Amino acid sequence: MTIDLLIKNCHIVPDPSKNESIRHGFIAIEKERIVQTGPMDQCPVLSKGTTIDGQGQLAMSGLVNGHCHAPMTLFRGMADDLALSTWLNEHIFPAEAKHVNPDMAYWCSKLAAAEMLLGGITTVADGYFFEEEVSQAFFEAGIRAIPAQAIIDFPAPGVPDPAKALSVVEAFIDRWTAKTPLITPALFAHAPYTCCTETLIHAKKLARRKKVPFFIHLAETADEIKHIIKPQGATPVQHLEAIGVLDNQTICVHSVWVDEVDLEILAKHGCSIITCPQSNLKLASGIAHVPQMLKKGIRVGLGTDGCASNNTLDMFREMDICAKIQKLPALDPVGVPAEKILHAATIGGAQALGMASDIGALIPGNIADIILLDIHRPHLHPFYTPNTLVYSGSSSAVRSVIVHGQLVVHNRELLTFDLNETKEHVRTLAEQVK
Amino acid sequence: MTIDLLIKNCHIVPDPSKNESIRHGFIAIEKERIVQTGPMDQCPVLSKGTTIDGQGQLAMSGLVNGHCHAPMTLFRGMADDLALSTWLNEHIFPAEAKHVNPDMAYWCSKLAAAEMLLGGITTVADGYFFEEEVSQAFFEAGIRAIPAQAIIDFPAPGVPDPAKALSVVEAFIDRWTAKTPLITPALFAHAPYTCCTETLIHAKKLARRKKVPFFIHLAETADEIKHIIKPQGATPVQHLEAIGVLDNQTICVHSVWVDEVDLEILAKHGCSIITCPQSNLKLASGIAHVPQMLKKGIRVGLGTDGCASNNTLDMFREMDICAKIQKLPALDPVGVPAEKILHAATIGGAQALGMASDIGALIPGNIADIILLDIHRPHLHPFYTPNTLVYSGSSSAVRSVIVHGQLVVHNRELLTFDLNETKEHVRTLAEQVK
Repeated sequence: MTIDLLIKNCHIVPDPSKNESIRHGFIAIEKERIVQTGPMDQCPVLSKGTTIDGQGQLAMSGLVNGHCHAPMTLFRGMADDLALSTWLNEHIFPAEAKHVNPDMAYWCSKLAAAEMLLGGITTVADGYFFEEEVSQAFFEAGIRAIPAQAIIDFPAPGVPDPAKALSVVEAFIDRWTAKTPLITPALFAHAPYTCCTETLIHAKKLARRKKVPFFIHLAETADEIKHIIKPQGATPVQHLEAIGVLDNQTICVHSVWVDEVDLEILAKHGCSIITCPQSNLKLASGIAHVPQMLKKGIRVGLGTDGCASNNTLDMFREMDICAKIQKLPALDPVGVPAEKILHAATIGGAQALGMASDIGALIPGNIADIILLDIHRPHLHPFYTPNTLVYSGSSSAVRSVIVHGQLVVHNRELLTFDLNETKEHVRTLAEQVK
Repeated sequence: MTIDLLIKNCHIVPDPSKNESIRHGFIAIEKERIVQTGPMDQCPVLSKGTTIDGQGQLAMSGLVNGHCHAPMTLFRGMADDLALSTWLNEHIFPAEAKHVNPDMAYWCSKLAAAEMLLGGITTVADGYFFEEEVSQAFFEAGIRAIPAQAIIDFPAPGVPDPAKALSVVEAFIDRWTAKTPLITPALFAHAPYTCCTETLIHAKKLARRKKVPFFIHLAETADEIKHIIKPQGATPVQHLEAIGVLDNQTICVHSVWVDEVDLEILAKHGCSIITCPQSNLKLASGIAHVPQMLKKGIRVGLGTDGCASNNTLDMFREMDICAKIQKLPALDPVGVPAEKILHAATIGGAQALGMASDIGALIPGNIADIILLDIHRPHLHPFYTPNTLVYSGSSSAVRSVIVHGQLVVHNRELLTFDLNETKEHVRTLAEQVK
């Protein structure tokens, strides 16, 4: 065993879903994999390689952001507190038509990657246009990603002719398949109300042929239900089942407006769900039925959604708010307990994205996607159990981040690219927006 | 005009409730008061005094935390996700009986003050036992406070005989009245279900005689309504009106379970309300009717509540969550728009606490309670309008804090006391808890 990177003297939470920890331990990494963890008295002595002193820090699995539209950082705070149709038709759609281009997608995704890495997110599933540039930005930032090129039945940024959407996706997938272990290309069918049956069927066929994940916004709002039930005579979930696009590589995003039957269908086909609580609140979509999803055995991950509807890419906020709002529907303070939320933000998200054999827990054999948190800050003090990460954790506590065995953030500084250059590019783009 | 402190080159939000700002301006302070603000081309030249370069920073009024139980930082994360009766009877009450003492109140309030100041809170209204020690801790920390000694009809920490509760409060008020401009002592009648009619009447009489604010937890849970309606034949609000304790120095905390009639009563008597959205979610109390409160002209502030039911003292989180959950009841994305939330966290809170003639806005004549935020961090970029402070703001963006004209946090370091010493004391106390 050659150890390339050794983290010493830290408080380790090996499996975030268990309220257990090693109070004073080490993590040994060889190349991209964790090879050993344990208490400090079993810590190997290192002759070469890098050592990080984790004194006063907590090591846990990097957070998995199950849904994002990275380029939309440009639209952060551009239009808040508006009725959905005003927001979409008068602000977001015109802004996208005017401002989304390859340059914007690249720089704004870099900004998104910086925000995510500095906040402890080591894996992100993205869905947007120009995912070629998004992928390049993520790759350079050193964040693990599943970038999914979007398909929609309208002229879209970079895809003026919707008839060509599938070939654009296919070319994108081909270019990024096996190019780098950090990037897993995928396909994102926008929604059942923006993609017709034929589009959905062909998109799923392509995803199956290419063996890539198929993402879809599903049952996000009450309006969507009405919109689909009328022509299809079925709920959005029933409609997708009927046309054969549900399987264990189908990742449903939002799924706020699903009933017991819908959830049983999703469970039966092995679909997973990414819940985006902050986005669902900000757009007034509602509260997803997370306890019922978990009860049916559905793999559930957490996502930030894009910056136009949140407005941060902060999985600590997402965990906190998810835990708190899940107590509302039944006015039950038990709700979804903190350890299950921590699970959804790490292993659960990895399972939902089909990556749990590699990431989500700090155990030997897993890839080293690790975050170190400064738990001695006042807002995390005292620190009785890892549950504190859910209700008091914050992206500002993230001190160091390792992705695929590489240190990408250290002492709160991003190591992989020049953040100031990126901010300057985004600032210039933002001046054109407002 | 002698300028003692000059903040230059900053982006100023003079009145947080208006979505306006001075993009490149200055703030001049003489002793504890703001004497001038304006664009940089009108900036005076300083011959002596201190200058802070606010380049890349946003200056706004310090945040007003309208409700806290500062010593409860010791119980942060001690018992989460439990049914209310289990949480109170098996965890909180026994822990309070065992661990709350003057030493604990002092050190844990210092930790709370550090968390709050580092997070941009410059004024806090507190309610607990041993407020003598809480006040001393706040005074040493340099945070503006309204510490309110609690009254309850049971043996309580420091007040084993409830019959003596009023005299303890009176002595506390006498000791701290006019002692320092930072501390305004007050009285906190715990709740209508823990204080009998006689206690409430006497407590309010004392508050009126001493001319101090009267705080009360009011209509927090559905259970409280049942508990009061049965013996009193009235809602908690109606009950308080009937016994004559409502006036414009009565500050009602929570008030989740109030109807239109209750709100009209509170408005008629000029009472104010402090809403604690995170606590109300975590304990599954419900969502306060903030739009209706504002519509009736009630002064509304925001509060964090204590660390046992939140679990942070973070007004940025409170603003974000308040704004988001207010969109839920009517599934209306307009809800309470961000500028009104920012108002509640600053001027609104100051109005609710009766301090708006001095604090809440950065205008000449007001006391200099100012926070400087680093708005060039990725999660605040781009920064189109001050609304971004609500949906993307974070305590981690707070760089410097001025209270009463004094710099108490600079470059994220607390200047007023030794934080490590405090954390060490709290750590020792926490070891006895678990």
